[in-house]
Amino acid sequence: MFKSVVFSMLENSRAASVAMFVMLLVIAASATPVRALDVDVSEYTLDNGMKVIVIPDHRAPVVTHMVWVRVGSADEELGKSGIAHYLEHLLFKGTKRLKPGEFSKIIRLNGGEDNAFTSYDFTAYFERIATDRLELVMDLGADRFANTTFNDRDVKTELEVVKEERRSRTENNPAALLREQLNAASYTAHTYGRPVIGWMSEVETLTAADAEAFYRKYYTPSNAALVVVGDVDPEKVHELAVKYYGKLKKTAPTPERARTQEPTPIAAKRVEMSDPRTASPSIARKYLVPGVNQAPPGVSEALDLLGQVLGGGSSSYLYTELVTRQKIASQVSSWHNGDTLDGGELSISIAPAPGVDVKVAEEALDAALHKLFKEGVPEDRVERARKQLISSNVYAIDSQFRLAYIFGAAFAIGRSVEHTKQWSNRIKQVTAEQVTEAARTYLKLRNSATGVLVPAPSKAASATSN
Amino acid sequence: MFKSVVFSMLENSRAASVAMFVMLLVIAASATPVRALDVDVSEYTLDNGMKVIVIPDHRAPVVTHMVWVRVGSADEELGKSGIAHYLEHLLFKGTKRLKPGEFSKIIRLNGGEDNAFTSYDFTAYFERIATDRLELVMDLGADRFANTTFNDRDVKTELEVVKEERRSRTENNPAALLREQLNAASYTAHTYGRPVIGWMSEVETLTAADAEAFYRKYYTPSNAALVVVGDVDPEKVHELAVKYYGKLKKTAPTPERARTQEPTPIAAKRVEMSDPRTASPSIARKYLVPGVNQAPPGVSEALDLLGQVLGGGSSSYLYTELVTRQKIASQVSSWHNGDTLDGGELSISIAPAPGVDVKVAEEALDAALHKLFKEGVPEDRVERARKQLISSNVYAIDSQFRLAYIFGAAFAIGRSVEHTKQWSNRIKQVTAEQVTEAARTYLKLRNSATGVLVPAPSKAASATSN
Repeated sequence: MFKSVVFSMLENSRAASVAMFVMLLVIAASATPVRALDVDVSEYTLDNGMKVIVIPDHRAPVVTHMVWVRVGSADEELGKSGIAHYLEHLLFKGTKRLKPGEFSKIIRLNGGEDNAFTSYDFTAYFERIATDRLELVMDLGADRFANTTFNDRDVKTELEVVKEERRSRTENNPAALLREQLNAASYTAHTYGRPVIGWMSEVETLTAADAEAFYRKYYTPSNAALVVVGDVDPEKVHELAVKYYGKLKKTAPTPERARTQEPTPIAAKRVEMSDPRTASPSIARKYLVPGVNQAPPGVSEALDLLGQVLGGGSSSYLYTELVTRQKIASQVSSWHNGDTLDGGELSISIAPAPGVDVKVAEEALDAALHKLFKEGVPEDRVERARKQLISSNVYAIDSQFRLAYIFGAAFAIGRSVEHTKQWSNRIKQVTAEQVTEAARTYLKLRNSATGVLVPAPSKAASATSN
Repeated sequence: MFKSVVFSMLENSRAASVAMFVMLLVIAASATPVRALDVDVSEYTLDNGMKVIVIPDHRAPVVTHMVWVRVGSADEELGKSGIAHYLEHLLFKGTKRLKPGEFSKIIRLNGGEDNAFTSYDFTAYFERIATDRLELVMDLGADRFANTTFNDRDVKTELEVVKEERRSRTENNPAALLREQLNAASYTAHTYGRPVIGWMSEVETLTAADAEAFYRKYYTPSNAALVVVGDVDPEKVHELAVKYYGKLKKTAPTPERARTQEPTPIAAKRVEMSDPRTASPSIARKYLVPGVNQAPPGVSEALDLLGQVLGGGSSSYLYTELVTRQKIASQVSSWHNGDTLDGGELSISIAPAPGVDVKVAEEALDAALHKLFKEGVPEDRVERARKQLISSNVYAIDSQFRLAYIFGAAFAIGRSVEHTKQWSNRIKQVTAEQVTEAARTYLKLRNSATGVLVPAPSKAASATSN
């Protein structure tokens, strides 16, 4: 189901990128970044500083309305992990006008659907509804943005919901626990090392006062954007935006996102977990790479291609090497997520073939990578990856949600509409040499963390019990 | 030299415990916790909330004066790592009365010596001087506690000093870098995972305003203790304390030390570093264990004994197994540090014998531990460890610095004088079964992080270069 996929993807993984989005929602097994598009985008800034981004799509009389806030879990204070996500839940608990749950009920009664998601760098709320109900949604959305009430009882009940969400999606899911541990091991200082949903030990201490303070600080119009994609006239949307969102008062100065800088990695990290609930072993590796805001020109795009070359689908390099040829793995995937405010990540995951030891699979992975880095990434692999990425980019136009997501996320991390639209042009200019250079420069073990999950205690672990 | 040892020990390692202190300063290679003592301790609380602890020692006409503040690096805000230690430096840069450096100059001109140190849970300033100069030191100490000035130029210059200190003690020291990486990998949420001296990326952003705010918040009399050990009359010290420290105004409410709780560890962690500046490989392991404030009765003491049994000196279990018998290691040591506000640690370090692969040494370690856990810790080993710990405890009486440190650190982590004095009585009651039980319960790989430092890129690392 759409709702739960959005939630679980964004909460449990750093890769809240379009790459992951596409992978999980649309084409399931293969990760394909999509970013730039040949679409008409109208942009306005309201007097209170709120951005409005409108993309017409007249194929059906429906509209997707999203409110993006430039705040995510990586902006949380020490000891308050999970507050951004908890607050997102609380924005469904009513305002001065609406009772708890009434927002979603009105959307449903009008034939629409709504939900929200939180990630490291942003929080977003969306509704999909018939175009003639857009004004209603804008009215309700603006109300929620400014007038959410924090009733003690509802706030406490919702914390139980969030804790249960963490239990069911993380604690009861060894693969999610491994991702969380791997992520924590990857970062030393930066808050990207904390889970979006928060550590349980901190989540259970969150209060209504924490949530309200976070809301007052970050939910100010100059820290947000309205993104509307659908069967609309941009001028008309602009007028409605002025009418509903334009009246929102600045509640705080635009918050600075002065996050700490992750020290240059100097050691290969590793986490090893054994869990009786796991049926078969898996290996996950994450390399810290520069994000789109830090990377030298072309590097983020070279890494997009590299992620696709390595593990984007069954024709990818690692898949053909490890699954098809060596039969050491039953599944391999890889993706790059550089669409972040701070650093990016290139991730690889492997399921060893039945009977193959994780150690053997990991050595085969390292050997395959070593070979590729030594010989250089072949021209034809880069060309194929380029075609795949660009086609996928074109397909994004088919989805209102994806379009809104792409431009909303770009806003949240401080990239312009134009930069976002030009992504495929930049992809076209990357050479195979640049992809090889990016691989050699960034995919060093000292930039990486490797996570291993095995069904029973491993040999090493059994030495001192698990 | 005394001064620099105190600094480097406390900044670069979590183990700012008396155990580490003894190991580094007094008996060099063997780690022996000392904690409780048959000494007369007088305790007072001044009207402003400041504690005064006095221990007479009439063997020589000298006195050790220490001011302990209940704040350390683990109390720092996100992105401000290093501020506690930086502030400690700034407390030597002058007050309304004294020019930068004048404090130490006066102490020296009066035949004394002075310094300070910062750790995770506390910051302390000390002077050793002839007893007849105690009043002078108390006058200056109280002035510094309340009236330090933050002159922009001096503050900036001192930041360069701190950065250079980090460069020389950490960046240029692969073993220190490994300890830092291991520590970071050990913790997911708790600030014990950050280095006391701070991450360079954060240290270089610290400002005078940061330091002054930290000073105003934490350097309030009810958050501090004066500890005086030496040729003094407690009543006379109390009078002087009232005269000098008693006049200090409360500048802030006693700060809460509401730190985040580390989630229960679920994965074995590992960091692997190669560094051309390293001559021979080394292995360090750290298990997270409950600290003295969290452990069930007797457990912290059982872990004290376990640390000593495992690697306290050349008669210890791991030393005899790995160095003497198997000749797999050239050095082994182990120590427990539970004297912390939050969680404790049991650490083991091994230098593989020349020509022995780190992998082989690590497997031998795990096998030796497994054997001990399976067979149980022998009675005679526990008895020997107990005697060693208790003798060492008695020796502490010989050092004014150590006595002041023991009771000052206990104050900082919220333990009473009486609890501290009774440590050896608690050690006497621990059974071999309890030591075995503690080993089996807490020394699980999933509670551990292992760090490996090798001179050249390891085989695995060379697969994708270092």
